[in-house]
Amino acid sequence: MSKKPLILVTNDDGITAPGIRALIAIMTTIGDVVVVAPDSPQSAMGHAITINATLHIEKVIIDNGNQEEYSCSGTPADCVKIGVKQILNRPPDLCVSGINHGSNSSINVIYSGTMSAAIEAGIKGIPAIGFSLCDYNWNANFEHCKSYIKTITENVLKHGLTEGTVLNVNFPNLTKNNIKGIKICRQAQANWDEEFDKRQNPYGKDYYWLTGKFVNLDQHKEDTDEWALENGYVSVVPVQFDLTAHHSIQELNTWDFDKK
Amino acid sequence: MSKKPLILVTNDDGITAPGIRALIAIMTTIGDVVVVAPDSPQSAMGHAITINATLHIEKVIIDNGNQEEYSCSGTPADCVKIGVKQILNRPPDLCVSGINHGSNSSINVIYSGTMSAAIEAGIKGIPAIGFSLCDYNWNANFEHCKSYIKTITENVLKHGLTEGTVLNVNFPNLTKNNIKGIKICRQAQANWDEEFDKRQNPYGKDYYWLTGKFVNLDQHKEDTDEWALENGYVSVVPVQFDLTAHHSIQELNTWDFDKK
Repeated sequence: MSKKPLILVTNDDGITAPGIRALIAIMTTIGDVVVVAPDSPQSAMGHAITINATLHIEKVIIDNGNQEEYSCSGTPADCVKIGVKQILNRPPDLCVSGINHGSNSSINVIYSGTMSAAIEAGIKGIPAIGFSLCDYNWNANFEHCKSYIKTITENVLKHGLTEGTVLNVNFPNLTKNNIKGIKICRQAQANWDEEFDKRQNPYGKDYYWLTGKFVNLDQHKEDTDEWALENGYVSVVPVQFDLTAHHSIQELNTWDFDKK
Repeated sequence: MSKKPLILVTNDDGITAPGIRALIAIMTTIGDVVVVAPDSPQSAMGHAITINATLHIEKVIIDNGNQEEYSCSGTPADCVKIGVKQILNRPPDLCVSGINHGSNSSINVIYSGTMSAAIEAGIKGIPAIGFSLCDYNWNANFEHCKSYIKTITENVLKHGLTEGTVLNVNFPNLTKNNIKGIKICRQAQANWDEEFDKRQNPYGKDYYWLTGKFVNLDQHKEDTDEWALENGYVSVVPVQFDLTAHHSIQELNTWDFDKK
């Protein structure tokens, strides 16, 4: 039996995306790799799962690596569920998701299919990391991410992660020589100021495209992921999925709920 | 100008679901109500948003209340975005989502379209509450929820919510006389142990249905929402959307990232 770690690889851009191909290539140097990834792009799917439709999986060969690969008709979270429970014979030692074509820093973690896959693995007690590059281009260059991904992954395999947490790793869009290193951060407080681009279809009916601009409410805060990325660092944010705002429980207990 | 609060109502079961009709009826006794809700069921959509397709909204009249209503082709999070930025003239004083047909307690908050709408409002700085009834039936009885929803809503309008938090409220499936009251809780640690029901389509191809059983890792813990619901209480969990696991930052800073 192999002593190598078993690594489940997934993403949200789809199994043929250059980002996941780069991630697979790195992971095959570290462990035994099984890929279960969406058969089509699933960006901005958040933590959606498929409960009202059927799921299909297909064993596929996409490149010459020694990984085993399955494409799945579901969301990133579905891929992790079906990978762990249906495809793998034992729980993986690690789940990695990405490399996403585009940033998943700060509030974007909430909307991110890449991170939902990592969080799904975390819920199952599997150490997990989501990797994203701040470049939405399909032909983005992932070269400068490789040694960092390897270092971070090896650290996670060596140390494990605090129970109830996974890692959200984002790379600035820089060449390797311009990256200053890795920075452990908190998620910047930020939101999107949406604009809806209103148009009319050929039949006179209105429709909308969701657009908007990113608003960083934590400008110049050096402990945030946004600051790290703007200043040439790889950002690493520990992410939890206990969403309880423990600090506000005491306040809520002072409310008067008896006036019914 | 009206002194009544402006309340945005949405859900994930779709604009015609009995749960949202019950919620609208309560909210029209409290404020001016605008409904922006999905035109079809969106359960388990997590925090998905629509960025690769167009959105449609349609002004509709569904019952005789004095609310204004719009059905939207998008996800619950989309409904809040387009409601706030395109339909309403000013930010609402409150956003309520539900009443969901089915539980959104403990880890289900992650998969919940109902809660994603509340969280989206929270991200925009709008006080928000998601309401769910632990009964998946379309014909569920929401009567016993009404006075509690009114009390909780009035408290939120009076006190506001801690910045960065929204409320996740779940109702046990009991008659009013059997409910013991409201309990402020933390999210129970829990997960789903999935099973994939494998079938074959008429053309000989395998497909899967996602099923599974809920595993409560916090059995008998009286401070959790699962305990509250099992013991006849309405559970109220404050939920945050800063996912940073602040407690694990120090540990990560001891890792050796320099061996590249």
